[in-house]
Amino acid sequence: MARLVMKFGGTSVADIERIRNVAQHVKREVDAGHQVAVVVSAMAGTTNQLVTWARETAPLHDAREYDTIVASGEQVTIALLSIELQRIGISARSWLGWQIPIRTDGAHGAARIQEIDGTELISRLEQGQVAVVAGFQGLGPDNRITTLGRGGSDTSAVAIAAAIGADLCDIYTDVDGVYTTDPRIVAKARKLDKISYEEMLEMASLGAKVLQTRSVELAMVHRVRLQVRSSFDAPDAPWGAYGAGANGPGTLVCDEDEIVEQQVVSGIAYSKDEAKVTLVKVEDKPGVAARVFGPLADNSINVDMIIQNVSDDGKSTDMTFTVPQAELHRAEDVIRKAQKEIGCKEVKTDTNVVKVSIIGIGMRSHAGVAKTMFQTLAEKGINIQAITTSEIKVSVLIGSEYTELAVRALHTAYGLDAE
Amino acid sequence: MARLVMKFGGTSVADIERIRNVAQHVKREVDAGHQVAVVVSAMAGTTNQLVTWARETAPLHDAREYDTIVASGEQVTIALLSIELQRIGISARSWLGWQIPIRTDGAHGAARIQEIDGTELISRLEQGQVAVVAGFQGLGPDNRITTLGRGGSDTSAVAIAAAIGADLCDIYTDVDGVYTTDPRIVAKARKLDKISYEEMLEMASLGAKVLQTRSVELAMVHRVRLQVRSSFDAPDAPWGAYGAGANGPGTLVCDEDEIVEQQVVSGIAYSKDEAKVTLVKVEDKPGVAARVFGPLADNSINVDMIIQNVSDDGKSTDMTFTVPQAELHRAEDVIRKAQKEIGCKEVKTDTNVVKVSIIGIGMRSHAGVAKTMFQTLAEKGINIQAITTSEIKVSVLIGSEYTELAVRALHTAYGLDAE
Repeated sequence: MARLVMKFGGTSVADIERIRNVAQHVKREVDAGHQVAVVVSAMAGTTNQLVTWARETAPLHDAREYDTIVASGEQVTIALLSIELQRIGISARSWLGWQIPIRTDGAHGAARIQEIDGTELISRLEQGQVAVVAGFQGLGPDNRITTLGRGGSDTSAVAIAAAIGADLCDIYTDVDGVYTTDPRIVAKARKLDKISYEEMLEMASLGAKVLQTRSVELAMVHRVRLQVRSSFDAPDAPWGAYGAGANGPGTLVCDEDEIVEQQVVSGIAYSKDEAKVTLVKVEDKPGVAARVFGPLADNSINVDMIIQNVSDDGKSTDMTFTVPQAELHRAEDVIRKAQKEIGCKEVKTDTNVVKVSIIGIGMRSHAGVAKTMFQTLAEKGINIQAITTSEIKVSVLIGSEYTELAVRALHTAYGLDAE
Repeated sequence: MARLVMKFGGTSVADIERIRNVAQHVKREVDAGHQVAVVVSAMAGTTNQLVTWARETAPLHDAREYDTIVASGEQVTIALLSIELQRIGISARSWLGWQIPIRTDGAHGAARIQEIDGTELISRLEQGQVAVVAGFQGLGPDNRITTLGRGGSDTSAVAIAAAIGADLCDIYTDVDGVYTTDPRIVAKARKLDKISYEEMLEMASLGAKVLQTRSVELAMVHRVRLQVRSSFDAPDAPWGAYGAGANGPGTLVCDEDEIVEQQVVSGIAYSKDEAKVTLVKVEDKPGVAARVFGPLADNSINVDMIIQNVSDDGKSTDMTFTVPQAELHRAEDVIRKAQKEIGCKEVKTDTNVVKVSIIGIGMRSHAGVAKTMFQTLAEKGINIQAITTSEIKVSVLIGSEYTELAVRALHTAYGLDAE
């Protein structure tokens, strides 16, 4: 017997037929004797309709009222799923955020979970009742409904798993796991059986859209074992049927101690959401970096890579940095306003860039990992425009036309290709 | 300065444009210095969609889950209206049933309000904030959402009005008031300025669809002054602008003491939702009535009129009664099962009947009111099949083909025609 959290997103509960499919997944685990808490999102499309109404009423609206509106979406799906579970003979009840309660801070629209009292849920689970929990929502300190913001349902699932001490938190999604890289680019991409929290975090924040960064962070903090798996194929085997320690149908995101054979490089990620800003002929004197990055930080613009060229004449230099594309316009504004103070000739921008990263916890104990990356790219004639590294990743900025070429070459170079 | 409750139904909030119209009604009262609590229903159509989903999932479903689903409809409208009010510069916030809370019993789907603590609402109203309250819903003893059943939003409005000690509860609807009779039948029907609770109750339960019986009962118990008025025309004058004691734009439902000139007959109601059951040749002996009506009562079938003919031979008699048409089928079943025990030859049914009623608190102090009714119908050659009376009404059962003729003749006979 195990205690499981099963999370299903909006496309998995988009209509009654799909809700019945979700119920079958739940039934499989219940029939195997497991205790199950299900976390669901709103029916796909519903949230968009609700958001449209709110925006149509007033483009600028009270975040508390907005939360009240959008939280109604999950309210419908938890009750429909409970009805369907009961129909097929499974004891179940729905739980709204305020009923558990899932206590959050007061940041409406982007609230953070602060506390979940799992006592009542655990007691019901032990009585054999399935708990169907509304994702994405909680109760703020003002006794009003809060929502967790983008990807909130994954976060809800992980938080519930932590609160009830679940053995596993299954995230059902439209892919069957986490891959070594984007299978749309690399046909030989392999599904990973296991990946560490740290690696998954890098993958998530670098553009692999499988799991939201926040939910992985939370899972890491509370040591919640996450499994990414598909809601569309319905394997008959319940959890545990694969044998102790054996791999499940998806990808397990877990503590690195659970991963016996650590790869040097586990995956290749890429992000096209990058923009490069170059300040031409910046005066090369102390304090110039502060004058550039101070105003950007003040405006909450997230600067990622930074390169300062060696000065040719000892008087001026070029300075390059990257920001998310969505923030480029604001970043340009900030820089142009400060241009005189910075003392640069010209500001150039380029969105025709991509960030490609190699990720792996094995890097910590292996030398020469970055060298292989640079050599591989050089062999393909790809110019590296910027580099950043962390303990478990190396990222390079290259021209976006080289995306596929670079990712495929690196995938092969690090021995990730499926046979 | 007065404290007002304004209630708007589903058609009044069916889309964003109509929600803006509702906000203008509220603004008018706020601008005049009044304290306002608004009670709204779900957008027309929304509830039907939600009910359809629940039924599609399982025809027989957990009433608690059903309540969770349908209550989401009001959750959306209260927040949208609050956003619109804020947009036009009015301080407002939404209140869900569980937030106030509106405490109900545990009869999910048809819950009765037990207690509303108005303290917090009153404090907010006094600070100039409009309270936008979800109608139709409350919080059950199990800490789950309950709904009040059909017409619940009117009941919510009256209960809120009682809890906050409102001077008036305006029910905005698609008609501009309560008429002496159905204007679709009688062109000369007049809008009533005032009507007593007792009369309104008779009107409501006899088929005038303006207000739900439960809400009028509650208003009568708590002495909440109700006004029925139209949400489609938007008179500029706020409450009180008509002068003390003067009539508002709609019909005021109030204590009879407030009605200075009491009409002998205030209105004519009719109900086509009647079915007649005749038991032919019932044994005429003690206890037969109990054998007929006992089983009907046991099955919660609502018997209205009863006539027992005088026995011809001292041995058998015909017995006739009426039930709502929706219950005829069940009533027939019950009677046929008990037919032997009752000892009747034959059971005949007839749905081709209508109940026409005259209603007026003035009847208490006037003799001969019924006589005028019988005479008027006799003059038109209309046969009366059954009669029931109460302190303030007389009802007759006639063939349904005489509906219009009877209602028009009575309307004229009691001097109700508009000039």
